[in-house]
Amino acid sequence: MNWPVSTPTLLVDKAKCLANIKAMADKAKRNDIRLRPHFKTHQSRTIGNWFKDFGVDAITVSSLKMAEYFALDGWQDITVAFPVNILEMELINQLAATVNLNLVVESGESLQALKSGLRFPVNVFIKVDAGYGRTGIDASDHDTIAALIESVIATGHTIFKGFLSHSGHSYYTRHDLQSLNDIHDKSRSANDRLRVLSANYIDDCEISVGDTPTCSLVEDFSWATEIRPGNFVFYDLSQWMIGSCSLEQISVALACPVVSKHADRSEIILYGGGVHFSKDHAEMPGTDATFYGLLVEWNGKNWNTTGTSNYLRSISQEHGILKVEPDLFEKYKVGDIALVLPVHSCMTADLLRQYLTTDGEWINE
Amino acid sequence: MNWPVSTPTLLVDKAKCLANIKAMADKAKRNDIRLRPHFKTHQSRTIGNWFKDFGVDAITVSSLKMAEYFALDGWQDITVAFPVNILEMELINQLAATVNLNLVVESGESLQALKSGLRFPVNVFIKVDAGYGRTGIDASDHDTIAALIESVIATGHTIFKGFLSHSGHSYYTRHDLQSLNDIHDKSRSANDRLRVLSANYIDDCEISVGDTPTCSLVEDFSWATEIRPGNFVFYDLSQWMIGSCSLEQISVALACPVVSKHADRSEIILYGGGVHFSKDHAEMPGTDATFYGLLVEWNGKNWNTTGTSNYLRSISQEHGILKVEPDLFEKYKVGDIALVLPVHSCMTADLLRQYLTTDGEWINE
Repeated sequence: MNWPVSTPTLLVDKAKCLANIKAMADKAKRNDIRLRPHFKTHQSRTIGNWFKDFGVDAITVSSLKMAEYFALDGWQDITVAFPVNILEMELINQLAATVNLNLVVESGESLQALKSGLRFPVNVFIKVDAGYGRTGIDASDHDTIAALIESVIATGHTIFKGFLSHSGHSYYTRHDLQSLNDIHDKSRSANDRLRVLSANYIDDCEISVGDTPTCSLVEDFSWATEIRPGNFVFYDLSQWMIGSCSLEQISVALACPVVSKHADRSEIILYGGGVHFSKDHAEMPGTDATFYGLLVEWNGKNWNTTGTSNYLRSISQEHGILKVEPDLFEKYKVGDIALVLPVHSCMTADLLRQYLTTDGEWINE
Repeated sequence: MNWPVSTPTLLVDKAKCLANIKAMADKAKRNDIRLRPHFKTHQSRTIGNWFKDFGVDAITVSSLKMAEYFALDGWQDITVAFPVNILEMELINQLAATVNLNLVVESGESLQALKSGLRFPVNVFIKVDAGYGRTGIDASDHDTIAALIESVIATGHTIFKGFLSHSGHSYYTRHDLQSLNDIHDKSRSANDRLRVLSANYIDDCEISVGDTPTCSLVEDFSWATEIRPGNFVFYDLSQWMIGSCSLEQISVALACPVVSKHADRSEIILYGGGVHFSKDHAEMPGTDATFYGLLVEWNGKNWNTTGTSNYLRSISQEHGILKVEPDLFEKYKVGDIALVLPVHSCMTADLLRQYLTTDGEWINE
């Protein structure tokens, strides 16, 4: 490719994205459940539209602003998978007036604010904690949950739909299907019991679960009604470390200008740092080395992986230091473009907010 | 304050910023050298203008795009303290035509590209490595440096000005003035020798140095011609860990909505995560705890620190988990705003790109 880029640019391989989306959509179909992908990963209307061919018509976002962005592009069924921020009541009402808005509630305080502020109906999911320990009501605390369900039902404009949980501790596993299955089984048991509880109040309780690691590696989600993975559309080195994907499935790479070379330490200095990659990093398997990205090589159509010996060993605000083997060191010249797989594609995409496809098309929204 | 914010917002205390700027400008005056502050920290024209009252008329930036942003606001003397990116020759020429543009070169390849691409004169600083080991020619490698100086002088449109270095390893020190002085002394020795070398070519060699830790803690910079600290205008918890500042000198805090509370673990869930704070973190002094921010409390005019027991213990993309002592846990309600000092203000400012002063004024550029 004659690179049309002069500054760090996020390259996306659409064919890989479509394959990633298809695999996840197929898994949802096999389980006869809804795929409600999390769009915080790409935050792009163009990429969002790629999901439509796979039957996706419901999405997840992480902020009301992001909900607004996709609502204005025609998405009609949007879950904001974040404890509802009651300071944004005006935007909540604006969205509730126009789309099927699903909010996440985990406290009576939030519900009270919705009670006094809502002018249009919203669906409410109770956020439960099935083991992660970040947010949500302990899934085994049925008394608190039952009381909150009753409040939701008693409150005008809030329609109780079911339970939402996120097993984010799946991100701590490393090629450990047993631990992942344990996390998954605990989530299933907790949600099965909640479904029984919910039968006192509604007929068809929604069970919304699914992070990218479990959605990638576990088959049975038939006990849920929907899955909400996000990262899988791109994947990244974090997911590769977990075992959710192969290096070849990662569909984004940051194209970085080479600005300097240091032969004495076989290092290439890239224009590409913390304000592009984010500071997310990982430990190289089998070593103590921290890394911030892996070099891949352009092959004329997309990229080939180069193993794990050519990696971003350090980043500062704008610089990246790429440690490479001697043959690759010789190959790259100042002014060339080097492609680097990111550790955390959601954060990298959030920072770049623009994509270039491997076919040479710019994606600006 | 009746908070005019509903989403994570970067609060800036202008009085503290002015005091931080004044202290650094005074140090430069005492040393009879130029303060050329690094504007990558705030990336704001409004905040940039605060420096003018202290006699600042020359600035540092980390990208050509940032140089353009400030050039369009009238800044006429701009150093891009990053190995020159030869893929942006058009922008280099555009800037060189209108401002006093100082570029950083560390290789013959970059210089060759400038030779063929430049249409207007630029000043060239040779980037030397005085111990950090990131970028630059080894400051003791006088043969390579002399050859590069000769090439700069022989090349049309490039004017050799002197040497630029960054002792970024000062960031690894923790309340260790001895190590900081060692780093500083090595930089001084290396630069003194380079000044002698430069006398073969020019009369008044520029010596540009100065990171925030050494500029904050070391007094004697009389051997340099300018200092380029950036972070000091805001400071942050990283600088506090190093000993560059007190907690009270930190002039930015992220205002985050409280979205949930967990009494069982005395934790408050904030709307404020990696896409606001960045993922930069630090180790709490005296413990192994990783932290991403410290809670401070609004006092009606600005904020008071609350010690180190109330800290952001974990963040994900949009969530922050604030661990607080029981009395503060009781005080905060869902829908309140909590103020958190960031670990790395440059990264936080880069993500937010907007400020609210403690006087209630919005800074949008």
